[in-house]
Amino acid sequence: MRLRNIASAPQKLAEFPEIVVQNPQKFKGLWAKKIFENKNKIHIEIGSGRGNFIINSAKQNPNINYIGIEKFDSVLLRALEKVADMDVENLRFLRFDATQILDIFDVAEIEKIYLNFSDPWDKNAYKNRRLTHRIFLKKYEKILKNGGALQFKTDNRELFEFSIKEFNNFGLRINEINLNLHENEPSWNIRTEYEEKFAGFGKNIYFSVVSFGG
Amino acid sequence: MRLRNIASAPQKLAEFPEIVVQNPQKFKGLWAKKIFENKNKIHIEIGSGRGNFIINSAKQNPNINYIGIEKFDSVLLRALEKVADMDVENLRFLRFDATQILDIFDVAEIEKIYLNFSDPWDKNAYKNRRLTHRIFLKKYEKILKNGGALQFKTDNRELFEFSIKEFNNFGLRINEINLNLHENEPSWNIRTEYEEKFAGFGKNIYFSVVSFGG
Repeated sequence: MRLRNIASAPQKLAEFPEIVVQNPQKFKGLWAKKIFENKNKIHIEIGSGRGNFIINSAKQNPNINYIGIEKFDSVLLRALEKVADMDVENLRFLRFDATQILDIFDVAEIEKIYLNFSDPWDKNAYKNRRLTHRIFLKKYEKILKNGGALQFKTDNRELFEFSIKEFNNFGLRINEINLNLHENEPSWNIRTEYEEKFAGFGKNIYFSVVSFGG
Repeated sequence: MRLRNIASAPQKLAEFPEIVVQNPQKFKGLWAKKIFENKNKIHIEIGSGRGNFIINSAKQNPNINYIGIEKFDSVLLRALEKVADMDVENLRFLRFDATQILDIFDVAEIEKIYLNFSDPWDKNAYKNRRLTHRIFLKKYEKILKNGGALQFKTDNRELFEFSIKEFNNFGLRINEINLNLHENEPSWNIRTEYEEKFAGFGKNIYFSVVSFGG
């Protein structure tokens, strides 16, 4: 199925209740039990975009529950196109803004957070909108289990430099840092659509994993 | 003056008592008072090589005392060639191994440490010889004043990745991180001989400043 009418995206999203969770606030603290109906760990991607990363993660790891969070209806629809005919029981999507993430996840409900090619918000005035800004780290700290991790990938050098400083100054443990992920690309790396498109242009992909507490 | 006879380097070094400090252990805790005869702050470079960085630092900042520490006689002689005819009162050199640094500097005697293009010690078995390994950070923590800084520059990606993790996991504060120092090179950057030579080859220069305590 191909969703052509992007203009009516919000209505379209409602047509996929089995994969796009409506009123996610209702499931705060209840995601594993009520939505996935199991006790598996939950991984979320904030800014799941066209979905390649989280869909393939879900396929490769059936014993982990995945939630893709995307702010823009039209982008989320592109991800739905890919899973509409699939049976991926351990995957859900939300049309939601990450600034409100504490409204939908309870303390220690999440095991791992992925940020892939997040908006760099280049202008100085908008730095606090970066998803690795301490404002967000504070929220992630709440919803992550003790010892939970944040995995971050970007091609934006300045955003990466900023993020490493934020991670450090927030007191997180830097477990992994790779300043050129595609040189000897690890077999576990799942590329996003954006990453696939720009990999050929010789752009550096920066990568880091940090952990909270624990 | 040009020092050609590198084979007799140790003897040659002794010919410059005014710039190469002999028996540095004798001056532990007394560097400012006895050697520089002032109360200025002391900055040291570990692995000062051919000397360009520390000589130019000393010229540009007459109110800071500089000590260049170099393990290899023959390399140190190259630096001495450059200052033999100069009058740089705020600069001294030591032929010394950094592993023994606690023997020559007292607690909180140093304000800032520079590491420029340190040996990457690529082999796994030798990682603890890297000058940014926690073994050395522990020593630096002792000799640095509270709030003192370590400034680090390298073109070795793996050494830089390792170092950022070490800094972070040791609890240091990352104040600056720059993954391409020569793109928009800051006017304050003083290039080493190595840096000058390889700058034209498009190699990335990685840069970081971290602070201890404070």
